[in-house]
Amino acid sequence: MKKQLALAALALAVAGTASAQMKPEDAIKYRQSAYGAMGWSMARIKMNVEGTFNKEDVIKSANVIQAIANSGMGSLYLPGTDKGTGWEATRAKPEIWTEKEKLGKAATAFNKEANEMAKVAATGDAAAVKAQFGKLGETCKGCHDDFKAKN
Amino acid sequence: MKKQLALAALALAVAGTASAQMKPEDAIKYRQSAYGAMGWSMARIKMNVEGTFNKEDVIKSANVIQAIANSGMGSLYLPGTDKGTGWEATRAKPEIWTEKEKLGKAATAFNKEANEMAKVAATGDAAAVKAQFGKLGETCKGCHDDFKAKN
Repeated sequence: MKKQLALAALALAVAGTASAQMKPEDAIKYRQSAYGAMGWSMARIKMNVEGTFNKEDVIKSANVIQAIANSGMGSLYLPGTDKGTGWEATRAKPEIWTEKEKLGKAATAFNKEANEMAKVAATGDAAAVKAQFGKLGETCKGCHDDFKAKN
Repeated sequence: MKKQLALAALALAVAGTASAQMKPEDAIKYRQSAYGAMGWSMARIKMNVEGTFNKEDVIKSANVIQAIANSGMGSLYLPGTDKGTGWEATRAKPEIWTEKEKLGKAATAFNKEANEMAKVAATGDAAAVKAQFGKLGETCKGCHDDFKAKN
């Protein structure tokens, strides 16, 4: 028991150290970058479903979204990063830090649809990609509505 | 032959349309975002090899780098995006558009090491990750030295 407590304390201390190594403005810039990279990928999938469908482009885009969705971006929402400027002033709403359960559900829904998007992209089925793009976009919007301030 | 030429012309026209759909400032912002997401991932791998090694964190980071490295970012270097502002003024040097062969070699080297990084990360071998992190970082630096303006 003592050993477990000691290990838990050590784990917390290490996490604290790792967090302390990252400046708040870097954390904000990194998360804005990750969303920006996903924004590109979503725009690219949209161009493919609305214009000429290129299977490889869609796969590449879906892979970027999937990798970022599964990257553990939560670690970038360090204490003290509710305010501050990365590429621009953060638009993270305070609810990110107070409504953990709601946020967890939104994140889980997004991850599920992002993983599904990668699977659907691999099939090269344009109609299925279009449908899954819609579902994925809904989970982006759902989170933005609740947790991202309007410009 | 006539049909092939017609198809080639059509392909060019479509590519032109797809490019035209993206504003130069969006293309610049997207590529800065993609580099930012990779910057986060590199910083994260560095923290893991210098501090406590967490295999899963390293895998997640390597996957982000790999997905972006293979995403075809070249399509974001549209004509007219040698100047302009995304998140900030672009630091792309004119050589990107004039030294295609040199750029191609730098991009190929980066892709190779990014793919290798993902493989090495999956093994969970901290020493091998550290060594591969060094090799990958060299390919980042090589490209920055030649194609990215200093601040």
